[in-house]
Amino acid sequence: MKKVTVLGGGTGSFVILSGLKHHQYDLSAIVTMMDSGGSTGRLRDQLGVLPPGDLRQCLVALSEAPDLWRKLFLYRFENGDLDGHNFGNIFLSALEKVSDNYNEVVKSAEKILHTKGSVIPVTMEKAHLCVKHENGTIIKGEGIIDENYTEQSKIVEAFLEPKINANPRAIKRIQNSDVIIIGPGDLYTSIIPVLLVDNIKQALMSSKAKIIFVMNLMTKSGQTTNYTAQDYIDDLQIYLGRVPDDVLVNNGEIPSDILQWYKSHHEYVVSNNLKSNYSMNVILEDVVDKTTVQLSASDKLSRSILRHSSDKLAQIISQIIT
Amino acid sequence: MKKVTVLGGGTGSFVILSGLKHHQYDLSAIVTMMDSGGSTGRLRDQLGVLPPGDLRQCLVALSEAPDLWRKLFLYRFENGDLDGHNFGNIFLSALEKVSDNYNEVVKSAEKILHTKGSVIPVTMEKAHLCVKHENGTIIKGEGIIDENYTEQSKIVEAFLEPKINANPRAIKRIQNSDVIIIGPGDLYTSIIPVLLVDNIKQALMSSKAKIIFVMNLMTKSGQTTNYTAQDYIDDLQIYLGRVPDDVLVNNGEIPSDILQWYKSHHEYVVSNNLKSNYSMNVILEDVVDKTTVQLSASDKLSRSILRHSSDKLAQIISQIIT
Repeated sequence: MKKVTVLGGGTGSFVILSGLKHHQYDLSAIVTMMDSGGSTGRLRDQLGVLPPGDLRQCLVALSEAPDLWRKLFLYRFENGDLDGHNFGNIFLSALEKVSDNYNEVVKSAEKILHTKGSVIPVTMEKAHLCVKHENGTIIKGEGIIDENYTEQSKIVEAFLEPKINANPRAIKRIQNSDVIIIGPGDLYTSIIPVLLVDNIKQALMSSKAKIIFVMNLMTKSGQTTNYTAQDYIDDLQIYLGRVPDDVLVNNGEIPSDILQWYKSHHEYVVSNNLKSNYSMNVILEDVVDKTTVQLSASDKLSRSILRHSSDKLAQIISQIIT
Repeated sequence: MKKVTVLGGGTGSFVILSGLKHHQYDLSAIVTMMDSGGSTGRLRDQLGVLPPGDLRQCLVALSEAPDLWRKLFLYRFENGDLDGHNFGNIFLSALEKVSDNYNEVVKSAEKILHTKGSVIPVTMEKAHLCVKHENGTIIKGEGIIDENYTEQSKIVEAFLEPKINANPRAIKRIQNSDVIIIGPGDLYTSIIPVLLVDNIKQALMSSKAKIIFVMNLMTKSGQTTNYTAQDYIDDLQIYLGRVPDDVLVNNGEIPSDILQWYKSHHEYVVSNNLKSNYSMNVILEDVVDKTTVQLSASDKLSRSILRHSSDKLAQIISQIIT
C-alpha cells in the first residue's frame, strides 16, 4: 500500500484528506502547529497548550467514527464563557493537560475518532510564525498574518520564532513516503509554517517521494495578493528547496456570484502561467466543488466559500500516483 | 445478578458507585438533574443545556475506561475563558448540542467511558429546586441552596419549579430493582430533588426493592443544621413516602483535626439516635475513609474533606443484600 502524506493544515488539508481516506492508501497528515487565531489562539495563550485547531481538522477529516463524533469535534459554542470555542479544540487542550506527552494526546484522539491513518504534528514545540514584508514591516503571529487582508506589500521572508525542532515522527514519515501532497491551503499560514520547522526542508529535499502541489483556487488578499501560479511556485521553492514534481491547477469554471464575492474582497482566480517542463509536470483539471457551501451560523471564523472538491482531488491524485 | 440502583448525585453517588462497581451487580444510578451551581450552573444558564455535573460524576464513577479518560472527565480548567469549567461538563454540553435527544447523550458518554452499568437522568426536563424555610423564606436554585451556609431557619418544604415528568427509564428501573440505595449525599440538594420528580415517589412506594439509606457523616450548615440521624429520616420519609428498610450509620472514628475543620464551619457529626424497629433496621459500621483527601488546586468547588470509604460501603452493602 502506497504511503501518501499530506502536508499543511486548515480547510485545505481537511478537504484533501476527506477525499483520500476513501482510497486504499497508507495515509498520514503532517500538520502545522503555528495557528494563533480564533479559538485556537485563545486556548494557546490562556492555557499554554499547543495550538489544537489544525490538528483537529485533520483528525476529523480522517475520522471513520460515527457521524455524531465528527459533528461533536466540529461543534462551535455560540454563547457564554465558551462562545466561539470549538469543542474539538477544547478536547485536545484538556487531553494535553492530563496526558504525559503530546504523542499520547494524538494517539488518544486518533483512537476516539477512529482515524484512518495517522495525524502527525510537525513539531511539539511552541513557536510563532513571522513574516517580513517588502516595506520592512515584520508581523508576528499566524492569526494576525492570516487576517492582514489590507496589506499591500509583498511578503519577502517567513520565519519561526523561536527556531524549533521537528517531531521525529514527521521526519521519518517524510523519509518513508511514496507521495507527499502539499496543499491546498494558504501558502504563508498553512503550508510554509510546516516547511520552516528545522530539518523538514532537508528531509523533503532528500526524500524519494513524488511531491505533488495542489494550487489554490483563489489568491488571498494581504498574503498572496494578485499572485499567479508561477508566483506560488517561486515562493514555495524557497522553503521547499526544490520544485514539486507535479502541480495540480484548476481549470474548472467558478460560478460568477462566487467570483464576485471574492472580487469584493480583492481576491481573484489564481491565473495559470505554468507550463510543464523537465522538472515539473503541470496538470490542469476541474477540481472545483460545485455543491453550494452553507456556512453555519456558528462557523464564524470561516471565510472560504469556495472549496476544492474532495472527491475530484482524490480521484485525480490517485491517477497521478498509479 | 441482583439489580442494584443508587439514587442521588454529587460526591456521595460518586463514592458509593466507585465501590459497588467492583462487585457483581447489575448496577444503575438514577441521578438528580437540578444542579445550578458552579461550572454546571453556568453551562445550564448560558447554553440552555441540562445540568451535566451530577451525571458526569456518576459516569466517571462507573467508568472502566483507561485512567486517562477518567482524568480527562474530571479535569477542571484553571485559566482564561474556560476557567473553573470541568471538561466532562463541557463534553456533555457539546454532546447535547449535536445529539437528537438526551438518551443519545447518555448512551454516547457511557460508551466512551465504558461504564459498568447505566446512568439514568431522573428527568430530561428542566426545573429548579426550591426550598421553603420555617421563617417563610423561599430560596430557588440548587446552587444557592447548597451554599446558603448561614441560614438558621429549618427547611420545611422542598419543591420543583416547574413540576416535571420523570424519565420513563428511571421509573422502570425503580420498579425492576432488587435494591435501591439512597445516599450518601446532601439531603436537600442531592437526594430529595430526585424524589420530587413526578411519579418517582409513587414508583419507590410501590417497588418491591429493599431500600437502603446511607446516612451522611456530618451535618450540613444551612441545610441540615444540627440534624440528628432521626431528623434525616423524618425529612426523608416525607419525600420517600416510607421509611427505608435499612439505614447504615457510621460508628467509626473521625480524626479530630477534621472534626475541628467542620466545627469551624458549624458542622458536626450526625449523632445517632436511631434504633432498629419492625420497619427499619439500623446498621452501625465504620464507613469512614481514613486516607487523607488531598484537594487539588483546581478542585475549587469541593468543600467536603471527609468522605465515606467506597470499599467499606460496598462491602457492607453486599453483606446487607445477600
